[in-house]
Amino acid sequence: MKVESVGEFGLIQRLAKQITVGPGVVRSIGDDCAVFEGPPTWYHLLTCDMLIDGVHFKVGRAKPEQIGWKALAVSVSDVAAMGGIPQYAVVSLGVPKGCTVELLEGIYKGLQRMAGTCGVSVVGGDTVRAPRLTIDVTLFGRVERTRLVLRSSAREGDQLFVTGTLGGAVRSGRHLTFTPRWQEIRAIGDRFPLHAMIDLSDGLSSDLGHLAAASRVGAIVEAAAVPRARGATLKSALTEGEDFELLFTAPASMSAALTEWAAGALRCGLTRIGEIVPARQGVTLRHPSGQRERLAAAGFRHF
Amino acid sequence: MKVESVGEFGLIQRLAKQITVGPGVVRSIGDDCAVFEGPPTWYHLLTCDMLIDGVHFKVGRAKPEQIGWKALAVSVSDVAAMGGIPQYAVVSLGVPKGCTVELLEGIYKGLQRMAGTCGVSVVGGDTVRAPRLTIDVTLFGRVERTRLVLRSSAREGDQLFVTGTLGGAVRSGRHLTFTPRWQEIRAIGDRFPLHAMIDLSDGLSSDLGHLAAASRVGAIVEAAAVPRARGATLKSALTEGEDFELLFTAPASMSAALTEWAAGALRCGLTRIGEIVPARQGVTLRHPSGQRERLAAAGFRHF
Repeated sequence: MKVESVGEFGLIQRLAKQITVGPGVVRSIGDDCAVFEGPPTWYHLLTCDMLIDGVHFKVGRAKPEQIGWKALAVSVSDVAAMGGIPQYAVVSLGVPKGCTVELLEGIYKGLQRMAGTCGVSVVGGDTVRAPRLTIDVTLFGRVERTRLVLRSSAREGDQLFVTGTLGGAVRSGRHLTFTPRWQEIRAIGDRFPLHAMIDLSDGLSSDLGHLAAASRVGAIVEAAAVPRARGATLKSALTEGEDFELLFTAPASMSAALTEWAAGALRCGLTRIGEIVPARQGVTLRHPSGQRERLAAAGFRHF
Repeated sequence: MKVESVGEFGLIQRLAKQITVGPGVVRSIGDDCAVFEGPPTWYHLLTCDMLIDGVHFKVGRAKPEQIGWKALAVSVSDVAAMGGIPQYAVVSLGVPKGCTVELLEGIYKGLQRMAGTCGVSVVGGDTVRAPRLTIDVTLFGRVERTRLVLRSSAREGDQLFVTGTLGGAVRSGRHLTFTPRWQEIRAIGDRFPLHAMIDLSDGLSSDLGHLAAASRVGAIVEAAAVPRARGATLKSALTEGEDFELLFTAPASMSAALTEWAAGALRCGLTRIGEIVPARQGVTLRHPSGQRERLAAAGFRHF
């Protein structure tokens, strides 16, 4: 059976069945990071992201430094989506024949620039021959046990928030230059309880679907509230992906205070886009007319 | 400038120059694992290894389970080479078009089998589209601070030991089925002080060269003492690589006791193959005639 016939998430489910995890594991496959036990009041986080020339970036179109920046930034975004603090990274590099040292040095410059913005140390790696330039970054981080935010903890009545603006990330080149919302979400978490969170890599409709499924809830997104990047259509904001903004839920009782605080303190912006409802209502988009339509997962699919 | 003109180790040196590491990092690029601070009496270890179809294995020739086994085993060998204990792994999978689910399930079966032998939990991963089947495993582990063994700690007069037998690992298929010497080295380390260690992935001559360079020492290898796998020539045992045995140094005062203990307790075998000498003597091979020749690095080179 070809992978195309089960799809990315069908494949992950089938692979997960082969695996048995031991004690100490808090979360394995199925969230933005794996979570396992650390020192008494902390959890460790571990996440990996593989980027390949022609799939996630194009050598020649993207600057080498942008490729390196993105390669680490996507993992920092995953750590942010758990409420955590990124710490150490290792980098596997697959290098095609004839690749220049300058290209790879540029990629490492970008990695280091990203690492410098968030206190990460790049501590090691592997370099091998590959048919196409391949970069796999694994990022290790930590989170206070009381501050861990899972995909699966959304509750009915929670309000849905998203950082920044959505849509057109690939067309505009923002997918290569984005700033992961690590500091923003730590600042929010210092002041407000977060219930559930995911980063927007596949697209709002897909990623909200993942969060709702993991939490066994439904959600309503207000079409008029979705914050669009300049020039982005609603469809693009809902489905295109590679935004690397954070989507999270917080208790309704905190909604007004959070919105007010964010308006003064959060430069990237924070928008309430909807709410969590019972699972039987599904995940829907509500238009200003009051009409609701099912919000189908339509983001980027690898297979 | 093409990567081929600087070579793998020249490239790594140039990339390392782009990187600044922060506090908490004990060892970054240049050993089998990165080492950073953990709980009071422990260090954390992190290592990644990328395997690509056609370079490290061949789909169709290697069984899927063997590919998965090897993908994790090479990283377990790296943790072993620091004296450590493997704990958690994440797996990035690059999947070519038309790849079957059964192949990937088989790979995960092999990963889990290897994980089961050493108490590792596979806790997460990433799956992306790739031109060729690509598996990158990152392994997290730990080591007591007093038990960390670096490449760079060999001392003049140390005796050189190697586990198992060397040579012909690729030809015989052993590179797909080997057992990393994690338990063996923990058992040795429980009883004897180890000074420096490296795992034999590139070949004895190359890897001993790395250890000697990192430790700023020379070494003499007794040609007659090198333990050869069945049918392997001396040249093959010295240069072919993919053995994934451990090469380590221990104080001469311990040599007899270690050899005696190993003869009774270590099923994989342990052989004293030479000794550490001052750097000015270089790394040489001594034939039974007493004649010495320079032991040139001649193992597998990616570029």
